[in-house]
Amino acid sequence: MSDHSPTSELDVTVPSVPAKTCKIRIGTNILTSLWAEIEAQFEHLAKFVVTDENLVSAGHLHDLLSSRDVPTFVISPPGETSKNIDTVTAIVEQMEKVYLGRDTVVVALGGGTVGDIAGFAAAIFKRGVPVVQIPTTTVAQADSAVGGKTGVDSSVSKNAFGAFWQPTAVYVDVATLKTLDDRQFRAGLVESVKHAVIADAGYFEFLDENLDAVLSRDCAVLEKLAYYNCQIKARVVEADPTEKNRRRMLNYGHTIGHAVESASGFELLHGEAVAIGMIAAGLIEIQLGLGDRARLSGIRNILERLHVPVSLPKGLDKERLIEIIKHDKKAINRWPKFVLIDKIANVYCQEGQWAVEVGQEVVEKVLDEL
Amino acid sequence: MSDHSPTSELDVTVPSVPAKTCKIRIGTNILTSLWAEIEAQFEHLAKFVVTDENLVSAGHLHDLLSSRDVPTFVISPPGETSKNIDTVTAIVEQMEKVYLGRDTVVVALGGGTVGDIAGFAAAIFKRGVPVVQIPTTTVAQADSAVGGKTGVDSSVSKNAFGAFWQPTAVYVDVATLKTLDDRQFRAGLVESVKHAVIADAGYFEFLDENLDAVLSRDCAVLEKLAYYNCQIKARVVEADPTEKNRRRMLNYGHTIGHAVESASGFELLHGEAVAIGMIAAGLIEIQLGLGDRARLSGIRNILERLHVPVSLPKGLDKERLIEIIKHDKKAINRWPKFVLIDKIANVYCQEGQWAVEVGQEVVEKVLDEL
Repeated sequence: MSDHSPTSELDVTVPSVPAKTCKIRIGTNILTSLWAEIEAQFEHLAKFVVTDENLVSAGHLHDLLSSRDVPTFVISPPGETSKNIDTVTAIVEQMEKVYLGRDTVVVALGGGTVGDIAGFAAAIFKRGVPVVQIPTTTVAQADSAVGGKTGVDSSVSKNAFGAFWQPTAVYVDVATLKTLDDRQFRAGLVESVKHAVIADAGYFEFLDENLDAVLSRDCAVLEKLAYYNCQIKARVVEADPTEKNRRRMLNYGHTIGHAVESASGFELLHGEAVAIGMIAAGLIEIQLGLGDRARLSGIRNILERLHVPVSLPKGLDKERLIEIIKHDKKAINRWPKFVLIDKIANVYCQEGQWAVEVGQEVVEKVLDEL
Repeated sequence: MSDHSPTSELDVTVPSVPAKTCKIRIGTNILTSLWAEIEAQFEHLAKFVVTDENLVSAGHLHDLLSSRDVPTFVISPPGETSKNIDTVTAIVEQMEKVYLGRDTVVVALGGGTVGDIAGFAAAIFKRGVPVVQIPTTTVAQADSAVGGKTGVDSSVSKNAFGAFWQPTAVYVDVATLKTLDDRQFRAGLVESVKHAVIADAGYFEFLDENLDAVLSRDCAVLEKLAYYNCQIKARVVEADPTEKNRRRMLNYGHTIGHAVESASGFELLHGEAVAIGMIAAGLIEIQLGLGDRARLSGIRNILERLHVPVSLPKGLDKERLIEIIKHDKKAINRWPKFVLIDKIANVYCQEGQWAVEVGQEVVEKVLDEL
């Protein structure tokens, strides 16, 4: 082995990457006038749209493009089954076939799945091109369109492939929610409840008072909801864009939620499973002396008004849930940490950590009660 | 369309990413003691090795791991045919099957293809894990292991999928070059000549004077070569990590080189094609009054001593080359810019641009002469 002579070692200092701003705009029926704005913002870039069949049949793709001739990839079938690397490959090769290069912006029109797939395709096309997100579901508008998490599933697990790739702009048109089916609409609102519970007591009150207007899809109220959600998400992402610590708070209700979602064979929607996970978190808080039945009742009450499940579906095996929790992607030594609150809008932070240790026996007890 | 009320717009400011240091170490026969160093540097991370069949049969994988039991993916067959998304998928799923999570470092042992594939897999596994590069070929040690370009080919074009993903450390053991086949060894040295030509007249002299020792694989001289190369590459990457402008200088000889490589059906090795591309660049420089025959002769002389081609292979159709150049990934309006020098170690920079306009008629004339 050679000694460490002056010519045997050197450093490459990759310079810092400057801060970047993502603009979010919220409105009602803004879709039809959006393209001109995108053209103006990305004047020198070619455009490529990624959407899915649901958006086409709901008329939203037509509202966005009108009669413009823009190369477009329509994901088919819509939903989780298409969230894989084959779809990303098809998108990238389609972009190449229409001679798109690095001077392209990808425009993602759709729900969380479209945003995840299109964002990831943008992140890896020719080493990365910008992406604009136009979320059209409650879950995407509240959560997934902001923050830059992108990815697709492997045959082994969810989001095995992914990148942090911040959108350059996010446009939220709450009028697109009018065409969303009722179950999707309600399940997606669970992420809004989660935001209120972890970050904003005023928002929790607003939700409680305006839930009927939300459920009747009153656009003025939905705009306020979107603003609350984006503001909370933005604050957390700004503090910790790549989820080293603080951003973990957004996983409230998600550890048991993901396990329940998976154990249900994805018969439960993500938001439905997270609702169960939030109740589980509340029960853990009671076990650990961080919460009480009254607070949990308040949260359960809102979730029940959304008609999402608040207890384990019959037939879900507890042993299997524990096994899945042990395989959680954030698990270290085969057991994950949990995000808990000690009051509404206050995540319990222990020794600077936003996710804390909870013994397996506590979780087992809670699952019995759930 | 709603008016721009105070609750209709907000910004997410994604904070700046701090500068990051990549440590490069160069030596002879350091492979056998490297693992202890990697264990020390990445104490809290699981390790996963990506390599190919050539490295296994040359004994280098054994030298690196000794009898340690480390999960390893062996790319098969070695080379460009495996540089596709299916190999990346297989790597990611293999990592999942052995229960690896985000607390993993990928160790890439091999040539440029291994480094590109493994680096890209690391970039997109669970939204990114660190990668260590251990390049074992002349081209990887001189060029591809440093600088963070990763990617794989699609069925349409090369490096259609990719990411900038800087390695955390690069270990160059020049003794691994001893097992490299002669043609690969010589072709890879073309990138060294390129570095000298664009950036360092002293290095150009060093190469000229020491080429016999290089070709006899004298490890002391190869270490110096590696140091020159890494220093030049590091300087350029530090100034422009994501190739907005200055980093383009590394594409010297590559625009026509890539076209020749592609037109040969990849029968020519990358370095061989770049050698022809460098001569073409020299001829363009003469046409534009930026160079003379004497300077070009000096460069041609070194390339000839490497036994790499310095003129177009017979049967290569000029029209076809022009067509391929029009499809260059950096082309704008179907014609790329070119990197040229106005003297050894001085890239011609016009109005702040490191790649400049060259008319199609000039290129056609040069191809006739080539």
